[in-house]
Amino acid sequence: MSNQPPHPALLIPGPIEFDDAVLQAMSHYSESHVSAPFVEIFGETLSMLRKLFQTADPASQPFVISGSGTLGWDQVAANLVEPGDEALVLHTGYFADSFADCFETYGVKATQLKAPIGDRPQLDEIETALKEKQYQVLTVTHVDTSTGVLSELKALSELVHRVSPETLVIVDGVCSVGCEEIMFDNWGLDVVLTASQKAIGCPAGLSILMVSGRAIERFKARRTRPTSYFGSWKNWLPIMQNYEAKKPSYFATPSPQLIHALHTALTQILSRPLGQRFADHRAASQKIKKAVTNLGLKQLATRPENQANGMTAVYLPEGVQAPEILSSLMKKGVIFAGGLHKEIATKYIRFGHMGVSVIDPNRQDVDKALEALKIGLSEVGYKV
Amino acid sequence: MSNQPPHPALLIPGPIEFDDAVLQAMSHYSESHVSAPFVEIFGETLSMLRKLFQTADPASQPFVISGSGTLGWDQVAANLVEPGDEALVLHTGYFADSFADCFETYGVKATQLKAPIGDRPQLDEIETALKEKQYQVLTVTHVDTSTGVLSELKALSELVHRVSPETLVIVDGVCSVGCEEIMFDNWGLDVVLTASQKAIGCPAGLSILMVSGRAIERFKARRTRPTSYFGSWKNWLPIMQNYEAKKPSYFATPSPQLIHALHTALTQILSRPLGQRFADHRAASQKIKKAVTNLGLKQLATRPENQANGMTAVYLPEGVQAPEILSSLMKKGVIFAGGLHKEIATKYIRFGHMGVSVIDPNRQDVDKALEALKIGLSEVGYKV
Repeated sequence: MSNQPPHPALLIPGPIEFDDAVLQAMSHYSESHVSAPFVEIFGETLSMLRKLFQTADPASQPFVISGSGTLGWDQVAANLVEPGDEALVLHTGYFADSFADCFETYGVKATQLKAPIGDRPQLDEIETALKEKQYQVLTVTHVDTSTGVLSELKALSELVHRVSPETLVIVDGVCSVGCEEIMFDNWGLDVVLTASQKAIGCPAGLSILMVSGRAIERFKARRTRPTSYFGSWKNWLPIMQNYEAKKPSYFATPSPQLIHALHTALTQILSRPLGQRFADHRAASQKIKKAVTNLGLKQLATRPENQANGMTAVYLPEGVQAPEILSSLMKKGVIFAGGLHKEIATKYIRFGHMGVSVIDPNRQDVDKALEALKIGLSEVGYKV
Repeated sequence: MSNQPPHPALLIPGPIEFDDAVLQAMSHYSESHVSAPFVEIFGETLSMLRKLFQTADPASQPFVISGSGTLGWDQVAANLVEPGDEALVLHTGYFADSFADCFETYGVKATQLKAPIGDRPQLDEIETALKEKQYQVLTVTHVDTSTGVLSELKALSELVHRVSPETLVIVDGVCSVGCEEIMFDNWGLDVVLTASQKAIGCPAGLSILMVSGRAIERFKARRTRPTSYFGSWKNWLPIMQNYEAKKPSYFATPSPQLIHALHTALTQILSRPLGQRFADHRAASQKIKKAVTNLGLKQLATRPENQANGMTAVYLPEGVQAPEILSSLMKKGVIFAGGLHKEIATKYIRFGHMGVSVIDPNRQDVDKALEALKIGLSEVGYKV
């Protein structure tokens, strides 16, 4: 069991519950960011990310920078496209709107391809869009945290490579890396960006990316300088390469404590076969989705193949208010999140089930949550 | 005494040694970034920063964003100036070059006013420069971490307000906030930017800024949108205002653990009169500077009024190599930093003396370091 002080189980789609050893690593004594022991830890962390993203291509490049998942969007917009370029943004919820806004900030035209809430753009629509214009990048939110809609990456990437081979495939994996299968090399992905606090299971504060050799070449061939300073790969690329080669190097001070925590989290993840980790998340997700269906609740993501394995977004029954049920759950020691999709924010709640809450056999978080949800709904007057 | 595992005393100009309670706060159990308990902590943290920066003007605006000190430059360049604007950058070492590079990234013309190594631009030179051109911002590095040169802010700011009243006064306080006196309101400063891991005494991972009401007005009057997304005050200003008003709000996920640690560090700092804290740093600095002078070593910062109170940069004696003395110090349990100023990097070393290493009476870090330096120098063949 956990040695942490008693606290409600945090079952939102990030931040998630953290393992004791990961939290312990957060309180590591102070080290120089260029000391041999820390350079070793940071270098190993970068190498472990290659395994997590399933890339063996030495040209692939991991980045770990203090920030949040959002900083990953800036990195893409500032390094891989130039003002006047075109981005095709596949929309499955809130985060596509934001990514598009980020592109526009950097003078890049973002065209959104939208699907009805709970669905995702279909391959034939995407093919049509790709044939209409030369897009430098296509972005897809692997799991949109606002809707729990899962996108399919393999067939999508194949389509892009076939129809528009110059278009880089950019994956927002903030709510998927660590709980959904991602085969970076095999699927021909160019960027997968994520954050530390979701299925990777490390406290918030890190922007994490894997970038393909092809995307790095695209970056190096820019006609203009990167349009960010803190997010510039011109500044960070040599630093990341040096750290992984175990050589001290400085651009901006990393957070040794967060890197230690990430190192611990990745060591735990890679101590078991990745396939088993994804299977565990799928099994927990199936159990949860079956349970909410049995409660008579409908998910935002309508079709099984559209449903994320690390979270579940469910519409509230008629007459049940989100604050009411969230507060009832809280009294039972369970924290869910409210809605986030602008058009329907008050009509649904979100249940995150990633990391130790589904992997650690000593935790009863999921069962406790399902029980609390059932009782909570009946308490607020909903008859199952 | 500290409950941390035995480790060498980290006496570089940041990251510094951290207090046990601050490190303990880093391993806080997971919380939602929009939960009432965390919103309370974040709100209090922002309010405490007002006290640290000595501003009572309600129009002043603190920002705390996941990142590093460098992200503060991006925030200034992306929010307070527009492409084509002019910045006057006062140069006292490495960090002015970088800040200027950051401005250029955002299409802002940076003019550097340089001083010889170890000195700072003089007020009459600055006055002349300000009269030559309309600068939207002037930047000054309060303490340049590469040289240990201290800039004087009060007279500088008075000069700018008198000669070029439209020019915003931007202070890079990365190596000064928490150990050098800064009177934000009284001195008429517009931005002081810093990072968590130096004299504030919280692990790295946070970009911290105080912004004047005047600068916020300038930001709001922009003709163009901010040129960063992650660093955009358009995105962050409502979030910071909401957190301080204890209202949950979301743009990008903050790091609850780092915010808890910052809250703990600020609570400790504000538990004593600030004046006492600055006096303690001055006293330790005087003692160190006297000791290195007695060892026959020369500082980069030549004149006493140019010398920082939180660090000391000293030239190595003829024939002594930096790796040799740094390694000798390390064997004695003390970590100093090498040189950083490009032109003379191999010729000097840096001793950081900020935070608990000088404030906590139970720590002997400074005495231990001075003793190690004396013995280390004699071991590598230097006769005092």
